[in-house]
Amino acid sequence: MITLASDFGLAYPAAMKGVVLSRTDARLVDVAHDLPRQDVRAAAFWLRETLPYFPPAVHLVVVDPGVGTDRRAVIFRVGDHVLVGPDNGVLRPPARRVIDALGDADASVEAYEIDVPNPDSTTFHGRDVFAPAAADAHVAGASALGSVDRFEPIPVDSLAECRLPEATVSADGREATGEVLVVDDFGNCITNVPGEFVRDAAGSRATVNGESVSVGRTFEAVPRGERLLTVGSHGNVECDVNHGRGDEAFGLAPGDRVELRVD
Amino acid sequence: MITLASDFGLAYPAAMKGVVLSRTDARLVDVAHDLPRQDVRAAAFWLRETLPYFPPAVHLVVVDPGVGTDRRAVIFRVGDHVLVGPDNGVLRPPARRVIDALGDADASVEAYEIDVPNPDSTTFHGRDVFAPAAADAHVAGASALGSVDRFEPIPVDSLAECRLPEATVSADGREATGEVLVVDDFGNCITNVPGEFVRDAAGSRATVNGESVSVGRTFEAVPRGERLLTVGSHGNVECDVNHGRGDEAFGLAPGDRVELRVD
Amino acid sequence: MITLASDFGLAYPAAMKGVVLSRTDARLVDVAHDLPRQDVRAAAFWLRETLPYFPPAVHLVVVDPGVGTDRRAVIFRVGDHVLVGPDNGVLRPPARRVIDALGDADASVEAYEIDVPNPDSTTFHGRDVFAPAAADAHVAGASALGSVDRFEPIPVDSLAECRLPEATVSADGREATGEVLVVDDFGNCITNVPGEFVRDAAGSRATVNGESVSVGRTFEAVPRGERLLTVGSHGNVECDVNHGRGDEAFGLAPGDRVELRVD
Repeated sequence: MITLASDFGLAYPAAMKGVVLSRTDARLVDVAHDLPRQDVRAAAFWLRETLPYFPPAVHLVVVDPGVGTDRRAVIFRVGDHVLVGPDNGVLRPPARRVIDALGDADASVEAYEIDVPNPDSTTFHGRDVFAPAAADAHVAGASALGSVDRFEPIPVDSLAECRLPEATVSADGREATGEVLVVDDFGNCITNVPGEFVRDAAGSRATVNGESVSVGRTFEAVPRGERLLTVGSHGNVECDVNHGRGDEAFGLAPGDRVELRVD
Repeated sequence: MITLASDFGLAYPAAMKGVVLSRTDARLVDVAHDLPRQDVRAAAFWLRETLPYFPPAVHLVVVDPGVGTDRRAVIFRVGDHVLVGPDNGVLRPPARRVIDALGDADASVEAYEIDVPNPDSTTFHGRDVFAPAAADAHVAGASALGSVDRFEPIPVDSLAECRLPEATVSADGREATGEVLVVDDFGNCITNVPGEFVRDAAGSRATVNGESVSVGRTFEAVPRGERLLTVGSHGNVECDVNHGRGDEAFGLAPGDRVELRVD
Repeated sequence: MITLASDFGLAYPAAMKGVVLSRTDARLVDVAHDLPRQDVRAAAFWLRETLPYFPPAVHLVVVDPGVGTDRRAVIFRVGDHVLVGPDNGVLRPPARRVIDALGDADASVEAYEIDVPNPDSTTFHGRDVFAPAAADAHVAGASALGSVDRFEPIPVDSLAECRLPEATVSADGREATGEVLVVDDFGNCITNVPGEFVRDAAGSRATVNGESVSVGRTFEAVPRGERLLTVGSHGNVECDVNHGRGDEAFGLAPGDRVELRVD
């Protein structure tokens, strides 16, 4: 199985699929091709929340604002999962979550650099570099990536890092300072504040950047159109609106600071 | 085969796919993940017009504004088709259409409630409840759903209902009062007025909420940018514009009343 | 394998998939369903840049502004590739590119008209005509299309043509006049000026419709938010912005004339 994720939108992902299918008849599964454009951190978040649910697979990830620069093309194997993409850190958070899911015993790791024949080329690396590499990794198998000539072993520690920012919570657990990690298609503002922060506050009030809102276990805890804090499916505090867009109602965007207080 | 339909947009459907594929290697077919948000009636319309074209399959349907409330998670089997989703009525219109397509002899029906271990959880039921249930239904097979422990038989009559509104047509067949059911991506306003209402009027004029427009067999029956009434692929009267958006030109949105008269 | 491409957006493509899968268990691969609406030339461009990367397949292409008129439904076989769609020219540019990729020896061609039982019907030809034809073409195989009763051989020369406009370049290679073929989802304006025009100019300046911009090998050659000319993955000159939208910054849309000069 090969999963595909990118920020390519219209038509470009199909060229990658054609290239893959010209080399292998692997099952292809689209993860998303409308990841926020050229936004490594947002892609890392979404892939962290998605890839660990898959059975072992080759995961082709192309969110690559540095295409054509000297950033490397790499493979990061974690257990039987093989992540293929640019060395800009996007592979790290999903890989960490896969490691957590597998447990230490099964989570052996190794890394490879993909030799790019014409590294100066500004061509479409998703199509011309990463898709063929993902196909060849699938054919070789997770346990024999070294058998592919143009995959060169590199130290895992040399892979670029991307760490999502962490929130701080006061000692009494009543105040948290964090930020909006991503806004989903519903307009829900997913913060980096752990859900535990509001878990006992359902039914009471909290403040978000000084404004008072309800804390609810579900959207339906408040009337339609009203704002609330809730714990989303990722386990984080979200700033949402029942049947509406939290980003608009709270005036929040990815990267914005949020100061929360439970009463 | 398992089809997937939701209003989830970006990235969320992939977690469902991962969960399904961790349990079965069924073929997955995306129906749509950009169904109108939290709009049970619109989803019921689109699925009614789509699912009956499929061969027997498990159909995973997650348009679920009541997630986290006490609405049940259910399975509705119709012949060899198995619909899995929230018990909010969304499964009923497509199931009725499948029954019509199968004919009475093949359309035995039964229903199950999916036992949700922690029904208070506000987690992502698409990922945590419905996707595993769809996978397990696929593995068990349509004829042996009762063999899955957490599927509890329930009366089919107990399933929530959703009826799309019906238009009224005057005795002389010249006036109809209905409403816009949905607006498609082209801006075509699909009403609930049966296509028969205008079928003999092609080439003549009709009025829509008091304004006169042409009735055309095809978009090209009128110049580009001009409004027309036509019969769409669902067999209903549509308020459209040739090479343009009917919703904008007619000022119509889903749920709006339409009064039609053929001259 | 059957690939699917259309301008249908929400939900409509799934009905086509259902029809296909009711007739064959072929592998289905979505190329794109958000092709620019009713825009034969743009679809021809995107398919030309995509379909040749696929292994031999049946390619179902439905961008069909003339649905319900007397335009024919056709099949164009090129080697082992079988293109199925409306006879409005959309199949020609991708077919030419497939021929180039295959080389003359393997690129035998033939064409068929698909008999449409009720050609006056204004129904959804993607679902009711093209999807069944694609399924039947897959089942028959590229070498035996003539065995399908309703496929009638027609001269290849009778197929409608669609030629993408070509740019003109001055004798000294310093001036080019062309146009914007398409704008991609990133806002990149892909022109018909061959990439060779700026390939030696990387690092220097050029003018676009009288305004001076940098020529860069990669987006990162200029600061974020700045305009540049570059050579895109299709081998054509593009008017882009690093981390921004070229269409907005240059004020360009598909079909707009571009006059380029390298200094």
